Amino acid sequence: MSETPYQQLERRFKRLSALGEVQAVLHWDMAAMMPRGGGEARAGQLAELKAVRHGLLTAPETGELLDAAEDADGLKGWQPANLREMRRLWTKATALPEGLVVALSKACSACEMVWRTARPEADFAAVKQTLEEVLALTREAAAAKAEKLGLSLYDALLDDYEPSGRTADIDPVFAELEDFLPGLLSDALDAQAAQPKAILPEGPFPEEKQKALGVRLMEALGFDFDHGRLDISLHPFCGGTPDDVRITTRYDEADFTSSLMGVLHETGHALYERGLPKQWRGQPVGEALGMSIHESQSLLVEMQVCRSRAFLGYAAPLMREAFAAESKDGDPAWGPENLYRLYTRVKPGFIRVDADEVTYPLHVIVRYRLEKAMIEGDMEIADLPAAWNDGFKELLGLTPSTDREGCLQDLHWFDGAWGYFPTYTLGAMTAVQLFEAAKKAVPEIEPAIAKGDFKPLFGWLKTHVHTKGSLLTANELLIEATGKPLDPKIFKAHLKARYLG
Amino acid sequence: MSETPYQQLERRFKRLSALGEVQAVLHWDMAAMMPRGGGEARAGQLAELKAVRHGLLTAPETGELLDAAEDADGLKGWQPANLREMRRLWTKATALPEGLVVALSKACSACEMVWRTARPEADFAAVKQTLEEVLALTREAAAAKAEKLGLSLYDALLDDYEPSGRTADIDPVFAELEDFLPGLLSDALDAQAAQPKAILPEGPFPEEKQKALGVRLMEALGFDFDHGRLDISLHPFCGGTPDDVRITTRYDEADFTSSLMGVLHETGHALYERGLPKQWRGQPVGEALGMSIHESQSLLVEMQVCRSRAFLGYAAPLMREAFAAESKDGDPAWGPENLYRLYTRVKPGFIRVDADEVTYPLHVIVRYRLEKAMIEGDMEIADLPAAWNDGFKELLGLTPSTDREGCLQDLHWFDGAWGYFPTYTLGAMTAVQLFEAAKKAVPEIEPAIAKGDFKPLFGWLKTHVHTKGSLLTANELLIEATGKPLDPKIFKAHLKARYLG
Repeated sequence: MSETPYQQLERRFKRLSALGEVQAVLHWDMAAMMPRGGGEARAGQLAELKAVRHGLLTAPETGELLDAAEDADGLKGWQPANLREMRRLWTKATALPEGLVVALSKACSACEMVWRTARPEADFAAVKQTLEEVLALTREAAAAKAEKLGLSLYDALLDDYEPSGRTADIDPVFAELEDFLPGLLSDALDAQAAQPKAILPEGPFPEEKQKALGVRLMEALGFDFDHGRLDISLHPFCGGTPDDVRITTRYDEADFTSSLMGVLHETGHALYERGLPKQWRGQPVGEALGMSIHESQSLLVEMQVCRSRAFLGYAAPLMREAFAAESKDGDPAWGPENLYRLYTRVKPGFIRVDADEVTYPLHVIVRYRLEKAMIEGDMEIADLPAAWNDGFKELLGLTPSTDREGCLQDLHWFDGAWGYFPTYTLGAMTAVQLFEAAKKAVPEIEPAIAKGDFKPLFGWLKTHVHTKGSLLTANELLIEATGKPLDPKIFKAHLKARYLG
Repeated sequence: MSETPYQQLERRFKRLSALGEVQAVLHWDMAAMMPRGGGEARAGQLAELKAVRHGLLTAPETGELLDAAEDADGLKGWQPANLREMRRLWTKATALPEGLVVALSKACSACEMVWRTARPEADFAAVKQTLEEVLALTREAAAAKAEKLGLSLYDALLDDYEPSGRTADIDPVFAELEDFLPGLLSDALDAQAAQPKAILPEGPFPEEKQKALGVRLMEALGFDFDHGRLDISLHPFCGGTPDDVRITTRYDEADFTSSLMGVLHETGHALYERGLPKQWRGQPVGEALGMSIHESQSLLVEMQVCRSRAFLGYAAPLMREAFAAESKDGDPAWGPENLYRLYTRVKPGFIRVDADEVTYPLHVIVRYRLEKAMIEGDMEIADLPAAWNDGFKELLGLTPSTDREGCLQDLHWFDGAWGYFPTYTLGAMTAVQLFEAAKKAVPEIEPAIAKGDFKPLFGWLKTHVHTKGSLLTANELLIEATGKPLDPKIFKAHLKARYLG
């Protein structure tokens, strides 16, 4: 019997998925293994792979098969959702004329290169013109996508990172945070000042000991080293493929706390990838859902689980054993309560990636406001530094002394990632909402965490998040898992309980 | 101006080359980095890449472009040779019906799997039937290629590993070795018995010290760690790509000598890849020529250079410093003369990969005779174990006690690599012939080696071998570089000088 159009599409998307996995392995290798001199050839390999994948996806035959499969009957179970995802990928891939794709890719590479020296030199003027080119081409791409998808310019970009994410939903949520967070921050700082000061354990902390502790906790959380690795890279990330998921970190021998929490964060991403539905592997519906859900899984592990009193009660003795086996039992630096204070310390600062749980959303909201305005044509690049500093002063009460700790700090815009920033905070809020629902549904989750047993937690997450792949939208998933769409009240209650309680 | 057919072909083969580099990186990763659980997904990635490359190469458009380019004028310099190589690749790729390619690939995978347990258990009967299937399909493939190329069955297979290699040229060369080597072996053993016995330095030799010494000698030879790596794998190999060449080894903490020489061997392969002509990168004419030339470069470095008195005079103090810095200066185990005896010890044995320079060709000739007979239909798989043992007894004077140290020892046949074996010995002979010519042309090569300076040697090799890519056949290259085709007399003279001198 010959294959149906849908079956032919499954074969075609399986190939696309395998080539996508190849890209992921090459990216991991580039960051963690590749010698510097391999860069030029690697760029060529990645460019050819990208072109091959683009060609496969946008071939006329793919469009014809989609039309035929949509007209046919007989799809079962997850297949209609898979066909919907195929169509979505095809629509996006065919929305942009090839010339624009190439121009945008070149502009982003050029801009990133200028940014790499402009940032340390805090020299916004140096990068202004090339950033203007990136913005102009990004807006052109947004317009092409917006027309095909029936969306606003900003939503057309956001949709690449957060499928079905819309400013109409995000705006009221962020407005509620804007009202709430500055007051909470001030109260949290007061509460913190009334507490004993957190003590940073004294090093040095040799790299191999940090790695051994990281591996031990990763394994406790359920990371399977038969299906993954932990390595070193300049910028930590979770890469590889669902069956061979590779996370990276970097070690500071003077302070283990940040690297360790980074490892646990990436482990959250990794366990999501590993938990994606095996029976849909290689198909679009089997892929991770979007950035807010992905970030919710890393932040649930890092921020909700691993920075909790329950987890630190379990992990503190392991940390002491790893680094200070000979220290006295009563050394206050290694006490769970001190480590909890350390890991929940609030401190307004300029740099997003160093921000705590309370101030992080404010960093995001500053960026979200600005990128929306620039994409919708309401603001010029020339006005960015001043607008950044105004927004930062308004929301965080601080004024960056240079653009290095202001609008030059993040790669995103310079590399063409517009519409990405809100997913960080959507992810943080989603993490809290999922964790609260999980604890309510399975009361043993928290006592188990205190004993280093994470099975009850991940049992719930697998069922309600990981194995759903891309079957639902993020909001549908939240409603099924927690009974309601994203609700800022849950996030606010969590922050009050943790930072004022 | 629109592209000429030849220019379009260059673009197409550049893509094929980039995807081939990707395959090489994935293979390296699989051997050196990948966790076990990633195997199934990796097999899928490699299969899809292979199918994409096969599809690109055999597309009707490729054949049309080749016809058009061959009819056109205006090719310059290396381009006609490049077009010739493109045609060769296309002819081979289109010679086999797709069904046969798939059947052969599956049969080889199945047979390899059975072999992996049959070998340790010395159970030839267990693997006999699946090996028969591999042979039947290999002969079918040989017939299809033979018809397209106008070659004998065996030559059609050999040509995949050794372009333009022919049994008509190999047979008389090997016949001369068959006549010569048994007598030389006996004389060499006598000469060796009259010498002091070689002393193996006493370990342990920690892995990181072995690696540091390997890196030091690799760098001395000219390996650039900005364009390559040294890692660990079960079976040492040279992989990666010309601009990012990755060699592997494995360490035995009780005996550093074998791993170190293995590293230097792979360094020879690596320097050949690195030295391939940069201006032809990504084109067929810029690729390594074939297995005999590749092996000649590794064996020239290992067997001719690094096992020489000149090299060991330079390296012996470095070895002692690496492992036994506190030992007395006069410890005879670390003396260059002892190390030279150790590294040129002759000892007939059953296992090819452990063989010395004198007996290695006899191991190869046993296999060459047998695989020719099986491919040409003059021998059955059922007769292989007995025929192996007969041949081994005749040429090496030993009879394997089990098939584990007999016909089950090498993966090649079980994995479908028929026609590969002769290239090892052609490579060994080519290495000697090139080294002799180089030393004659540049007299300072040998004194420089004794001082740890390898620039004169590699200067000559780059000019006469590395930068030639696939411009010439192996024999043409030898004639240009040494003034004559492969000449067994040169090899014989070398062996006499080294082992009877």
